Amino acid sequence: MTPNIAAAKTALSHIEQDESPSAIRSKSRDFFWYSPLLKKWLDHVEADFVVCPASEDEVIEILKVCYAHDVPVTVRGSGTGNYGQAMPLAGGCVIHMKNFAKVKEIHPGRVIAEPGCVIRDLDRETKEKSGQELRMTPSTAATATIGGFIAGGSGGVGSVTWGALRDLGNIIRLRVITMEEEPRILEFRGEELARVSHAYGTNGIITEVEVPLAPAYDWVDLFVSFKDFSAAARYAADLANQDGILIKLASVYEAPMAHSYFQRVKPHVTPDDTLVGLMVAPHSMDGFETFTARWEGAEILYRSDAPTWERDPGPVFEFGWNHTTLRALKFRPEITYLQVRYGFPQHLELVEKVRETFGQEVLQHLEVMRENGKVMFAGLPLVTFTTEERLEEIVRLHEEMGCMIFNPHRYTLEEGGRQAHDQRQLDFKREADPKGLLNPGKMIAWDRSDWDYSKPYEYPGMKAAE
Amino acid sequence: MTPNIAAAKTALSHIEQDESPSAIRSKSRDFFWYSPLLKKWLDHVEADFVVCPASEDEVIEILKVCYAHDVPVTVRGSGTGNYGQAMPLAGGCVIHMKNFAKVKEIHPGRVIAEPGCVIRDLDRETKEKSGQELRMTPSTAATATIGGFIAGGSGGVGSVTWGALRDLGNIIRLRVITMEEEPRILEFRGEELARVSHAYGTNGIITEVEVPLAPAYDWVDLFVSFKDFSAAARYAADLANQDGILIKLASVYEAPMAHSYFQRVKPHVTPDDTLVGLMVAPHSMDGFETFTARWEGAEILYRSDAPTWERDPGPVFEFGWNHTTLRALKFRPEITYLQVRYGFPQHLELVEKVRETFGQEVLQHLEVMRENGKVMFAGLPLVTFTTEERLEEIVRLHEEMGCMIFNPHRYTLEEGGRQAHDQRQLDFKREADPKGLLNPGKMIAWDRSDWDYSKPYEYPGMKAAE
Repeated sequence: MTPNIAAAKTALSHIEQDESPSAIRSKSRDFFWYSPLLKKWLDHVEADFVVCPASEDEVIEILKVCYAHDVPVTVRGSGTGNYGQAMPLAGGCVIHMKNFAKVKEIHPGRVIAEPGCVIRDLDRETKEKSGQELRMTPSTAATATIGGFIAGGSGGVGSVTWGALRDLGNIIRLRVITMEEEPRILEFRGEELARVSHAYGTNGIITEVEVPLAPAYDWVDLFVSFKDFSAAARYAADLANQDGILIKLASVYEAPMAHSYFQRVKPHVTPDDTLVGLMVAPHSMDGFETFTARWEGAEILYRSDAPTWERDPGPVFEFGWNHTTLRALKFRPEITYLQVRYGFPQHLELVEKVRETFGQEVLQHLEVMRENGKVMFAGLPLVTFTTEERLEEIVRLHEEMGCMIFNPHRYTLEEGGRQAHDQRQLDFKREADPKGLLNPGKMIAWDRSDWDYSKPYEYPGMKAAE
Repeated sequence: MTPNIAAAKTALSHIEQDESPSAIRSKSRDFFWYSPLLKKWLDHVEADFVVCPASEDEVIEILKVCYAHDVPVTVRGSGTGNYGQAMPLAGGCVIHMKNFAKVKEIHPGRVIAEPGCVIRDLDRETKEKSGQELRMTPSTAATATIGGFIAGGSGGVGSVTWGALRDLGNIIRLRVITMEEEPRILEFRGEELARVSHAYGTNGIITEVEVPLAPAYDWVDLFVSFKDFSAAARYAADLANQDGILIKLASVYEAPMAHSYFQRVKPHVTPDDTLVGLMVAPHSMDGFETFTARWEGAEILYRSDAPTWERDPGPVFEFGWNHTTLRALKFRPEITYLQVRYGFPQHLELVEKVRETFGQEVLQHLEVMRENGKVMFAGLPLVTFTTEERLEEIVRLHEEMGCMIFNPHRYTLEEGGRQAHDQRQLDFKREADPKGLLNPGKMIAWDRSDWDYSKPYEYPGMKAAE
């Protein structure tokens, strides 16, 4: 630990700190290891100290002290991200938000909460008190925080109805602290939200969120099986296009994914079953069953409102989004994944093209979403990793076919996004983090205005492995 | 009154009947007079007697007695339809459902009610007791009944989110009484619902409805003005495509409609203002304002959450759907209208084509809807009526351009629909109404299997004008 960092740590000793080496190591990591590349590049990354504020005043104090001592600060929730977004590349201070987790106000259609709220707890409280729940949640809702979701997520369970987190209306207000000599408290709404949402905490620390709520129902979890992948994909998209049938999740798992990796599902499927995982509102079940009966080859294997399986498979959303990858990784550590956008109206056709090109090397996992009012797919395919070169080639071939890739084998905002810098985020970082201490190394535009994305960005300030 | 009708009336004398000639006349009519053709053909139509059951047992008794005496039976709610659908072409008995109007059960996501419930009262009760309301309602919600809406409506306020009434999931269950020697009580769900929903009561009498509910919010009513009609239409469609912004209504009124016919709006607009009428969820207002600020030329004229007008314009939905036509008719009795489907993805382009063809003769009034998951328009344009021939030509020209017309100048199911008979409705009529006594003259397929739609259908059993 350098003297400046030690001085900051000491100056913050009255705020809860996590001192054990194993806690410091675990709180310096996220699910970056889904990527063999990130695993190679980031495995050694570790904070010098971890501090756990319980109030906005404590957050302000941490930022002020670290500013004075030139200490890098990386804020995180539960570290369920996959882009290394919450990892302190340059070491320094990690702010862990676990103690800053109150639900402050619940209103019809919206909730105000502290960022460290675990999403499952938040949903439980809004449901109990008001019959409402968040519009969308990550598959990691049981551990992920609402602040982490907003700062590092993009969508999830519920996006089939409500679109992406970045869409207008899916975040109402964020309260943000700057990292200056005298930290300022700012409130962002409307166009201003884009400055700090999905910015990995590179330009301010979120201390309060206001997000919309939707009605909470006792969603019926379902698995529907198909022998034909293409039929399953069409079924899932068409179901999402049924305006009168309310669903919260529609995932497609290409065969033999369910048989190979979904342990409690395995007894009920064969290796040639493609599965569709669904959450359907109970009052839409009649419409859903009517719709499904129209599809030859669709078989309802499991429904949580009338379970017949000996062992409960658990929530269906914990098979979807990035939990699919996690389940596969438990069986085959050489598995990794991609994040693909299959845009409307080419979504079905693009998926077929990709399947023809790669076969079993890139197994299709689709999440039905809405984008600009149209049903399309987010793809999180399972990729059998062989070499770095082949992985890069797979990405390139997707892009050549017309798929957008949000590359999960990169740790910067730009490379994991649209390969271009976000002027609003950069401008606000200049204002809110003049010393460049917030989550350093994640915003290429801050370091290098001339970057051309021809190779992976290597942050020069990366702390060396010891 | 023929002897058989008189006998039936007497046999039903213990059930409430509306005896006054003016009541009998008014309860034999709907808003058919929006159409100069229907006005000409149907103005004399009148029931012989009107009976108002208060229970399912009374409904059964009425059907049994009328069956025995061969008396035609036409069931109706408040008669807010426009296709003459609730008018007893052959005279006989009109069943008025006003006394059969209890809300029976309210659950999360659904309500069970008697068909005579006035929609506004139903919504008030579900909102008070559960914070919920119907997914969609006609602009006549203040007087229309839920049973009438299901038997004779197609969509309305809320269809911008939930699609049409006929879409899977928008009706859960209907309880239906047949008109046989011994009336049967049937319960329909799923595919069976199509037998009797939007069948004008031609093949059974609905005695209980179960429909889905959505959360009730204190919707913010808005008028947004544009100088450019095309921009207004694009704005309304794009707003509906914002997945994160929850709206319940988006109507477009071409200039000078608002200035000419919207009395309380007039002081705030000029003749060249095209207006967009909106209902936005309060927690979506930030997203809505952000979206609207991106549109050059969009001006928020009125918002019910911060009213500045001296005179409250009343609910914005009472300017939309067929209330627009009603408001115009009050000023210019020569106005009539059409019902046009502008399907995705040609919706914007088709509207422009129609405007180029007709100019001010066919003034555009659009309602943004969803159909198969896509935002599109239902058009209810204001047509300046000159002659029957020109009106038919206008219909034909629309169809030639690729617009589907649901012709509101016809009184049969087929001609007001897709110009083809519905086999499910016909089959069920054969089973449920063997004597053909239910709302006679409304289902061509029952009378004539060979009809070719080359001219308006003239029901041969029509009661002569006296």
